Amino acid sequence: MRATTIHAPFDMRVEDVPDPVIQDSTDVVLRVLRACICGSDLWAYRGESARQPGQRIGHEFLGIVEAAGSDVTGFAAGDLVVAPFVWSDGTCEYCAEGLQTSCPRGGFWGSVGSDGGQGEAVRVPFADGTLVKLPADAASDDHLLTALLALSDVLGTGHHAALGAGVRPGSTVAVVGDGAVGLCGVLAAKRLGAERIIALGRHTARTDIARAFGATDVVAERGEAAEAAVRELTGGQGAHGVIEAVGTEQSMRTAVAITRDGGSIGYVGVPHGSGTGLDLSVMFDRNIALRGGVAPVRAYIPELLPDVLAGTIDPSPVFDLTVDLDGVPAGYKSMEDRTALKVLVKP
Amino acid sequence: MRATTIHAPFDMRVEDVPDPVIQDSTDVVLRVLRACICGSDLWAYRGESARQPGQRIGHEFLGIVEAAGSDVTGFAAGDLVVAPFVWSDGTCEYCAEGLQTSCPRGGFWGSVGSDGGQGEAVRVPFADGTLVKLPADAASDDHLLTALLALSDVLGTGHHAALGAGVRPGSTVAVVGDGAVGLCGVLAAKRLGAERIIALGRHTARTDIARAFGATDVVAERGEAAEAAVRELTGGQGAHGVIEAVGTEQSMRTAVAITRDGGSIGYVGVPHGSGTGLDLSVMFDRNIALRGGVAPVRAYIPELLPDVLAGTIDPSPVFDLTVDLDGVPAGYKSMEDRTALKVLVKP
Repeated sequence: MRATTIHAPFDMRVEDVPDPVIQDSTDVVLRVLRACICGSDLWAYRGESARQPGQRIGHEFLGIVEAAGSDVTGFAAGDLVVAPFVWSDGTCEYCAEGLQTSCPRGGFWGSVGSDGGQGEAVRVPFADGTLVKLPADAASDDHLLTALLALSDVLGTGHHAALGAGVRPGSTVAVVGDGAVGLCGVLAAKRLGAERIIALGRHTARTDIARAFGATDVVAERGEAAEAAVRELTGGQGAHGVIEAVGTEQSMRTAVAITRDGGSIGYVGVPHGSGTGLDLSVMFDRNIALRGGVAPVRAYIPELLPDVLAGTIDPSPVFDLTVDLDGVPAGYKSMEDRTALKVLVKP
Repeated sequence: MRATTIHAPFDMRVEDVPDPVIQDSTDVVLRVLRACICGSDLWAYRGESARQPGQRIGHEFLGIVEAAGSDVTGFAAGDLVVAPFVWSDGTCEYCAEGLQTSCPRGGFWGSVGSDGGQGEAVRVPFADGTLVKLPADAASDDHLLTALLALSDVLGTGHHAALGAGVRPGSTVAVVGDGAVGLCGVLAAKRLGAERIIALGRHTARTDIARAFGATDVVAERGEAAEAAVRELTGGQGAHGVIEAVGTEQSMRTAVAITRDGGSIGYVGVPHGSGTGLDLSVMFDRNIALRGGVAPVRAYIPELLPDVLAGTIDPSPVFDLTVDLDGVPAGYKSMEDRTALKVLVKP
């Protein structure tokens, strides 16, 4: 089959690789119908996260089961399924608690020795613990299929951030980061009943999506000017909850500055940089909590899926460029150049 | 009257100062029956927190109302009352939410221009919002009076840490810090139903109190050895909740290392040092939350008071040395030398 590989910074290729086969009795082999490129893939693309030459990449995908191992009970050939961005055994203590990202036997798509989502097919370990079945008729609904793909990462990650930010009905929420995760954070905050949602962002193409997703205010300023703008919008107090969906020192600093005393930062931006951006003295005096991390998306899919199927929430607008497999390297460049928000891949 | 003043690092004095008088109609003047020295006072004592020469000190006290301003409705001369370690107006949005430490008109005892608790009397601003009445007959019960004094700070702060650590019935909790706050964290965790409480500490006088307060295990090792010991006690996973009651980089590093994936650190140690001790990448991967800060003790007194009155919880063992007002400077030295855990002051 053909799959995307990374050989060096900015050197993405689409190559012939061995077809995936059932290796363990709990495996499934899945033909990819939709995949996409994640903002976090760009850290590897830029060389800021190390990869071995030839390593696979892509951790968001849905598709059709082609073959299932003898111990797989929940899936059979022909099933339409979505995969969360980590696999997990579904049986350990952490999986039972809904923290599948901490499953000791879990792993990340595209890690050495595993398939990535940006290819024609994927071997899925622990299929029963990992995959979630989708209605078969969704396979013929192009728009719905794209919306469902967001369940693999960005929608669940936005939801995790909103939970970490403590969003409740009536909350005021601010969202730092206008990427797909930040925008899904807006959608998730709206879904959880936030009354006021302040999106920080300067690109109108993105802030327009934020407004469509439920943002009531947009702050285009950056740094201290952005902090001042949020404070002005909130009577000087800041937001009850802040979604941090970037992962840099500066974005965390902004998040702390715009959180109301007693509020929470829900952080889902993968931390990068040597410092944390956290001023613990300020957080201490103001009782600001920090919650979040890598989202246990597998736990959230059952809750979010019905709303996506019903069209109550539609994250599909975050995908603004579609490529085939050969177009993946150019897709990376488009996201790196910020001419694309999030690239959809149709292998 | 006579009150403790700080003139320079290690230069504590007990001096004649002006008698407090009602300045605002919402004030109360209170005669101090019991006060104490806090671990956080030692930062000023050592010169690590700046103070102006002659500034008052002490933020934990209870006593008898001597005079009440014309707008005070809740208290009259003769009432026995306890003060939380900050005053607050009781009427603002934050006070209504139970985050009195963020009251815009609130303040800290011993700040410039205010009285401190380590003296014969205190002018209490916003008395109705600040003070909590105690049963009159407690004034003649020496043991109970000492226990009630812990409501002014350490017991409520331990409770705040336990809440931040997310203690629930059945939780496994680890406590970093064997000072009075850490010990009260043990007591609070026990009260909230923790099943297993691991106290980190090397001084048997202190760990004996921890055991009496409900600790099921004591870890005497430090640093990485302590982390390994906690992991071994918890099946390799760490504690669901960790109470951080020190405030140094090292203690926070330990707290992160011994928190179970998906768990929370409740931090109440005043942050000191240039770094945070937080490895955000580790916290991200393991979904470790950080919650806490300066405890809104005023909000907790009504909940904790009945248990102290009933003797269900008795924090009084944290006071292991008693001095009169003249003995306060020596009391500081005893705490600095760690020959005393917490010094009780009977003016």
